[in-house]
Amino acid sequence: MSTGISWVRRSLIALLLLFLILVLHYNLNIPEFFNCSGSSGLSCARRKLGSFLQSHISKPKSNFKFKETPQCPHHPLDPLTIQEINQVRSILLSYKPFASFPAIQALYLDEPDKSQVLDWKPGDPLPPRKASVIALQNGQSHLLTVDLDLGRVTSHEVKSGSGYPPVSLEDINVALQVALSYPELNKSAIDRGMESSDLACFSPTGGWYGPGEEGRRILKVQCFSGRGSSNFWMRPVEGLTLTIDIDQKKVVKFSDTGRRIPVPEDTNTEYQYGSHIDPPKMQPLNPISMEQPNGPSFRVENGHIVKWANWAFHLKPDPRAGMIISRAMVQDSETGEFRSVMYKGFSSELFVPYMDPEEAWYFKTYMDAGEYGMGVTALPLVPLNDCPRYSYYMDGIFVTSDGKPYVQPNMICIFERYAGDVGWRHSELINYKIRESRPKITLVARMVSTIGNYDYIFDWEFQTDGIIRVKVILSGMLLLKGSPYQNISQVPNQEDMTGTLVSENVIGVVHDHFITFHLDMDVDDSNNTFVNVNLVKEETSPGESPRKSYFKAKRLVAKTEDDAKLKINLYDPSEYHVINPSRRSRLGNPSGYRLVPGGTAASLLDLDDPPQLRSAFTNNQIWVTPYNRTEQWAGGLLTSQSKGEDTLAVWSARNRPIENKDIVLWYTLGFHHIPCQEDFPVMPTVESSFDLKPVNFFERNPILGITPNFEQDLPVYGAAFSA
Amino acid sequence: MSTGISWVRRSLIALLLLFLILVLHYNLNIPEFFNCSGSSGLSCARRKLGSFLQSHISKPKSNFKFKETPQCPHHPLDPLTIQEINQVRSILLSYKPFASFPAIQALYLDEPDKSQVLDWKPGDPLPPRKASVIALQNGQSHLLTVDLDLGRVTSHEVKSGSGYPPVSLEDINVALQVALSYPELNKSAIDRGMESSDLACFSPTGGWYGPGEEGRRILKVQCFSGRGSSNFWMRPVEGLTLTIDIDQKKVVKFSDTGRRIPVPEDTNTEYQYGSHIDPPKMQPLNPISMEQPNGPSFRVENGHIVKWANWAFHLKPDPRAGMIISRAMVQDSETGEFRSVMYKGFSSELFVPYMDPEEAWYFKTYMDAGEYGMGVTALPLVPLNDCPRYSYYMDGIFVTSDGKPYVQPNMICIFERYAGDVGWRHSELINYKIRESRPKITLVARMVSTIGNYDYIFDWEFQTDGIIRVKVILSGMLLLKGSPYQNISQVPNQEDMTGTLVSENVIGVVHDHFITFHLDMDVDDSNNTFVNVNLVKEETSPGESPRKSYFKAKRLVAKTEDDAKLKINLYDPSEYHVINPSRRSRLGNPSGYRLVPGGTAASLLDLDDPPQLRSAFTNNQIWVTPYNRTEQWAGGLLTSQSKGEDTLAVWSARNRPIENKDIVLWYTLGFHHIPCQEDFPVMPTVESSFDLKPVNFFERNPILGITPNFEQDLPVYGAAFSA
Repeated sequence: MSTGISWVRRSLIALLLLFLILVLHYNLNIPEFFNCSGSSGLSCARRKLGSFLQSHISKPKSNFKFKETPQCPHHPLDPLTIQEINQVRSILLSYKPFASFPAIQALYLDEPDKSQVLDWKPGDPLPPRKASVIALQNGQSHLLTVDLDLGRVTSHEVKSGSGYPPVSLEDINVALQVALSYPELNKSAIDRGMESSDLACFSPTGGWYGPGEEGRRILKVQCFSGRGSSNFWMRPVEGLTLTIDIDQKKVVKFSDTGRRIPVPEDTNTEYQYGSHIDPPKMQPLNPISMEQPNGPSFRVENGHIVKWANWAFHLKPDPRAGMIISRAMVQDSETGEFRSVMYKGFSSELFVPYMDPEEAWYFKTYMDAGEYGMGVTALPLVPLNDCPRYSYYMDGIFVTSDGKPYVQPNMICIFERYAGDVGWRHSELINYKIRESRPKITLVARMVSTIGNYDYIFDWEFQTDGIIRVKVILSGMLLLKGSPYQNISQVPNQEDMTGTLVSENVIGVVHDHFITFHLDMDVDDSNNTFVNVNLVKEETSPGESPRKSYFKAKRLVAKTEDDAKLKINLYDPSEYHVINPSRRSRLGNPSGYRLVPGGTAASLLDLDDPPQLRSAFTNNQIWVTPYNRTEQWAGGLLTSQSKGEDTLAVWSARNRPIENKDIVLWYTLGFHHIPCQEDFPVMPTVESSFDLKPVNFFERNPILGITPNFEQDLPVYGAAFSA
Repeated sequence: MSTGISWVRRSLIALLLLFLILVLHYNLNIPEFFNCSGSSGLSCARRKLGSFLQSHISKPKSNFKFKETPQCPHHPLDPLTIQEINQVRSILLSYKPFASFPAIQALYLDEPDKSQVLDWKPGDPLPPRKASVIALQNGQSHLLTVDLDLGRVTSHEVKSGSGYPPVSLEDINVALQVALSYPELNKSAIDRGMESSDLACFSPTGGWYGPGEEGRRILKVQCFSGRGSSNFWMRPVEGLTLTIDIDQKKVVKFSDTGRRIPVPEDTNTEYQYGSHIDPPKMQPLNPISMEQPNGPSFRVENGHIVKWANWAFHLKPDPRAGMIISRAMVQDSETGEFRSVMYKGFSSELFVPYMDPEEAWYFKTYMDAGEYGMGVTALPLVPLNDCPRYSYYMDGIFVTSDGKPYVQPNMICIFERYAGDVGWRHSELINYKIRESRPKITLVARMVSTIGNYDYIFDWEFQTDGIIRVKVILSGMLLLKGSPYQNISQVPNQEDMTGTLVSENVIGVVHDHFITFHLDMDVDDSNNTFVNVNLVKEETSPGESPRKSYFKAKRLVAKTEDDAKLKINLYDPSEYHVINPSRRSRLGNPSGYRLVPGGTAASLLDLDDPPQLRSAFTNNQIWVTPYNRTEQWAGGLLTSQSKGEDTLAVWSARNRPIENKDIVLWYTLGFHHIPCQEDFPVMPTVESSFDLKPVNFFERNPILGITPNFEQDLPVYGAAFSA
């Protein structure tokens, strides 16, 4: 599952204290004393944030900087800086249409028009810096654009229609506070044999299920037992659901159906290091690590431009997408020209429906990016464990609901990888005694969103052969359902279970994860064409061949959006190419990149089921749309409680022309998850991936000429080791 | 494509010389001076083979031995030793029914009955050692069993029916010799402007296409230009095909259709290091390697038993399968008990059909394991490039057609991997400031089969969480078709091309790769049940829930083979469980392992097309059969020119009971390959994989208690480095 999580004890005093601590924490991270000299950013000073990392690693022999956070923007796509966010806040504070300061639900860079970004060269002044603000006041959503150069609000739209902004930490605190003050909740806890101070509650979003909950902002609250173990997720107080009107600050529905179901014990739920968990029975492992005595080979310029081997791209934290890769360019292996591959790539939405129609479960159909944000939930990475030695860490700068900036340290890491894999190889058997093999070394940008119980690791891996591999890796905690049973033999009808008994009195409910990626491919230029290279069986004519059948690759050019709404089918296979019809190789093949799906899953829900309507972008695995700067979020800009009026499926229903246009490719990577006992009390990682792969983009194998590994090139140990 | 490759110049003197060198090479590798004391192997001495590796690596501070090849068998499944092979040869030399020594096409351990292997304990005498021999004489296939303890042939069957044994190096030499002595071949070469000494030929198998070629052993011969570049594969002499009767040593068909098509130039075809290839335009990379100052954590006992972390398994080279994993057992994380997972796992067949019905191409529908052998084509691995530092290398011991043993050095490597990945993790947001993450370390067993042009890297990767990941990675050279065109604009009808123009005058023909794995799962014991856990959409009743739909996991127990013939379907998804119905967790869930497919492909050929009949085991992605010791090779024991009378599909048509029986799971991993220019002149690696994953096998996450990485546990550099 996936939620904005909070843990709040009964005491309001404690809650207030907590809030104060948070505010203090944010302020501590916000230096107010420096100033950028205008939007060009040329005379910006920089400061170094966080030296704690350097005390954690053996410093290699290099001048590599493991962290450097710029004060000022240096690139049109650089995220808003602390100073810029403060400036936006100042502008809003004096913005007349708001009687009082609104709740800031989202605040991020309003990216310049694509043409401006494409035209911009280092040294040029930056295009005007603007902020997009999504604010709430009196239950209404306000979309504002703040121009930082002009120092004023330049557009202001009040949204009607369905959908609300992402929930804020403040919203979550309100929901929890209202719930914990609700007498019936405490009464139920006591009736179940708990103390009310044991309650650890979280506030999942409720989706949209018809008119009953429309017209007001809603969060659900459900609770666990937090006594005796830090892993409260394993101890649901089943069937207890409060529906909270966040703006009215009141309980609008209280449902208590699970009193017969015991709260599971805390036995074997702990997972923190040092908490007396038996080590597994296995031979211990000797130390192993990826070592780089001369330091990493990549560099990060001005905080966001990553350069490595034949790749250059802009990388930034984003409150909603988590991590955005922009302007990805690969060097032509022969000319050295940096050639465009992708203008922008990011995870646009994450749809997580649970498969249980009961009162306490039906609404668990999360859209995590739009409801919570994949970036604001990306907590600091754990050095040496989440990321290896020699990782570079990047901070996120986000905004509280009162409009103040705060720093999320070490939110993204970047590292090189050598895993013993092969880039290419060939042997010849007899008198050509050829034994040629080349190592594969890659660059990874990683972030982990922890959306309540689940941890989503996102890897963007860049290979020297031109491939970008995008990997999603799941870990964290199951969302568990309390159960009266301790053994499946006690279950009257096992067919009726909506999940697996994963420990005594808890069921891991079956669910899905769908991650929809926005891939604004610009292969060699913005005007591209999507080609469905369909493998079609052919029968030979009588007498033509001893073979009866074979298949051909038929190139179906997608002229309009409908041509590119595709479901993957093992027995009607295709390759999915984005080509530049104007750029051809010396042989006349169009330059292209293909999407290569890996293992995946499709949504099985009814197309007219409310969660599927809202997440209709998962109706196909592949979509292609014409570029439109407002079409970034597959589930719509205002996703919470939306009815699905602003999704990719709705935009794409217009069936616009897409041939030889600036196009965006959308791909949804899916997982079905039937939990098992191994997932308790924390899940070993599960992964899936897709590739963006050059296809006739290079004239030939771009890594033909790389050198093999030789002993003398590898790290050399000094006296202490070789002795 | 995939073939037994040879390169032979015109001169028969050179050929003879080559053969002598080979024989000399084999003899040099065969020590004759030692002796094993009977089948128990207890008093066996050992010798150390190949110290060259140690001169290639920085020796770590450990007693780890990077290679040790036992003289004598120590385990019932150990492959035949050099001495045992010599003993088999002696027995056959004096075996009366053969007037002269037959051609040995295959000679390998006849594995003891499964029950004997399961009953055997270290220290017990070995079960009787036996050899299986597949021999040819007077065009007939002979299947023999030689009992080494009894010192005689104990069974002898002459096969009629379709199918021949694997082709031998001798067969290939015969085919090439016959072809190169054929005047029309030389005439055609000269007519095409070549010198006949430029011809570099190979001898692909021809499959089976009706009665015309039945009743005799056939190889095709086709040629390339070997002048000026070692990469002759890039320079086809198109449309020139000889069909050779190997036993009659004569050309039975000569086809020469491509004289209009030029032989492609040698430009940009070279790939060997040092052959003046321009380095790619990219920033050079600093050295990076996986370092293990205390040496690897695994050990290899008696040459074949691999023990690492919580895993133990038997690993051996095999002439046909390449690499066989047997008796894979994982330690229970709580009790320490070694529990059975898989009795035997290996790649059983590799089907590679090309998609061109023309005379010179239609027959390219290889079955590489049965026609050539994945093991005899596994050439020595390249240290530091095919496998990282601290790899352990294992030799293969195979047999020439005159029955003599030879050593294929460094055929398999074993190494530990840390790639910066995460085993499990979780963070908590607010007052539980939890940041827990654990590194993922794995063990890889790797082999590379080079079947002519293609290189197949096989990885069996063992994870501490109980997962076995099986990965197939493709590289090597495309099989190219000559073309009159240098630019696709010259092609009159591009729709008719059977592939991509990948360089001037060469087309990369579209093809598939299907790798069928034999997975004899023994989950906790031999008696297992296959369960198709089908995800079935359910509609809610009116008023039951605000949700309209969800899905349930329905457990369909496969009672007979037909229940387990499965095609993967994204919109009718399943999990594929092999469970032990007799072993249940404390919660009552049956202990199981599941097959988790990754990206894959299915054969699109007609079911009654000859190549598909022969490879009917690819008609489904999944099959389950009852264990039968003769059903090892999905394409039949005698695969060459077979009609498909002895395939998995035929065995399984009997629809035998499989519930709660000793069962074998078969999975086919597929690739469609539409070549692109990046594949020229050598292909960057492409990979796919599947997992065998515990499902309610462990009571809980088996790696919950592993320790995080701490700085002080990682490699420490000495003075030379830290200075």
